[in-house]
Amino acid sequence: MPYELYYWPGLQGRGEFIRLALEDAGADYIDVARGPEQDGRGIKVLMGVLAEQADPMAPFAPPFLRDGTILLSQVANILFYLGPKLGLAPADEALSFVANGLQLTIADAVAEVHDTHHPIDVGLRYEDQKPAAKERAAGFVKDRIPKFLGYFEAILQANGAAHIVGSDITYVDLSVFQLIEGLRYAFPKAMKGTESRYPRLAALHDLVRLRPNIARYLASERRLAFNETGIFRHYPELDED
Amino acid sequence: MPYELYYWPGLQGRGEFIRLALEDAGADYIDVARGPEQDGRGIKVLMGVLAEQADPMAPFAPPFLRDGTILLSQVANILFYLGPKLGLAPADEALSFVANGLQLTIADAVAEVHDTHHPIDVGLRYEDQKPAAKERAAGFVKDRIPKFLGYFEAILQANGAAHIVGSDITYVDLSVFQLIEGLRYAFPKAMKGTESRYPRLAALHDLVRLRPNIARYLASERRLAFNETGIFRHYPELDED
Repeated sequence: MPYELYYWPGLQGRGEFIRLALEDAGADYIDVARGPEQDGRGIKVLMGVLAEQADPMAPFAPPFLRDGTILLSQVANILFYLGPKLGLAPADEALSFVANGLQLTIADAVAEVHDTHHPIDVGLRYEDQKPAAKERAAGFVKDRIPKFLGYFEAILQANGAAHIVGSDITYVDLSVFQLIEGLRYAFPKAMKGTESRYPRLAALHDLVRLRPNIARYLASERRLAFNETGIFRHYPELDED
Repeated sequence: MPYELYYWPGLQGRGEFIRLALEDAGADYIDVARGPEQDGRGIKVLMGVLAEQADPMAPFAPPFLRDGTILLSQVANILFYLGPKLGLAPADEALSFVANGLQLTIADAVAEVHDTHHPIDVGLRYEDQKPAAKERAAGFVKDRIPKFLGYFEAILQANGAAHIVGSDITYVDLSVFQLIEGLRYAFPKAMKGTESRYPRLAALHDLVRLRPNIARYLASERRLAFNETGIFRHYPELDED
């Protein structure tokens, strides 16, 4: 039975971290909300699951994943669950928790990216909170990008491998790729020179990009383009050298 | 060997979610940064671990936990790891991931609480971002508290038990207690009437509060008072009826 991934159609968003793992593994999955209504898919099916009050596994928000009778929410949780099944988690139990800790730190970085364009109210448009967004983004670009990327670079160095945890590819490597990819899209000026400042991260980004299944996925129609409805948004006024 | 918990001294903060689990289980643990320097403890020891660049398990930020050779970061990750060892996790594997998803949703709520007093810059003081904080808190009180608490109330109802996942106490119940406790401290006006609007959450809060080890802990000096250096801060100007 294929995995059922539920995420807002039309944007990469948080769902993309899960798509990358499913795609790299060549897993059989349905991207439910992007499917046609006549096949019992589409956004209404996603909304129906969210509105279901009688299920103790009901998710708070997309993305969520159904695997048979299990319904799981939260990106890092879904990846922790899928990792071993997809061959993308460390075999060692202790390292599997180290991987989860790193994934949650990536999630924190992603949440801060979101706050650069929505510092005041998640329910308002960016256009209605632009002055605060400019202030928030300035601090993010100046202090937080170097703090997060400096941290991941140091972990790569300490791990002494091409991968961020253990000696082989994991879903965390794929998420590092997506974080770098998204930051380069949203903050191209601030991210200029990434290769020289964070050489190990840049190499890991390339390594993931060139994995056959990922390369095929990135070239396919399944890979949506970044856009200004997602988490990584390019607003030139929020970027700086 | 006792667990070593590392968190900023002087505040409950995110460390408190882990303390509650360790205390409820009567686990042997050291709250490292709150210990005396002559015993090899204190804030400098915490700072030393954070500054350690050569460890591939190095944490990004407190809280973190050392268990023998394992060093783990991120609240939900630490609780996922500790849960089975402390007898505070569902035995069923699928439910253990449901528990983790709920814990991560609590973490999201806690991050939004933090953003009510730090909407612009985590590095600035609240006093330097008060107008934005007032705007952010208004939306949080009006829309987000009801959304989060309404969700957890619905999960309790759907689960058909006094507990939020499975049929027995888990670390997630303890974290629900702390979330309610913190919100009542920070937003007493907004939270007035919680008992009538979220009766199952109020009952779960009481159930946890009265557990013998938790009651003893809350009455001890180990339980710090809420204060305005923590995550849950009481600024009357951010609260509303």
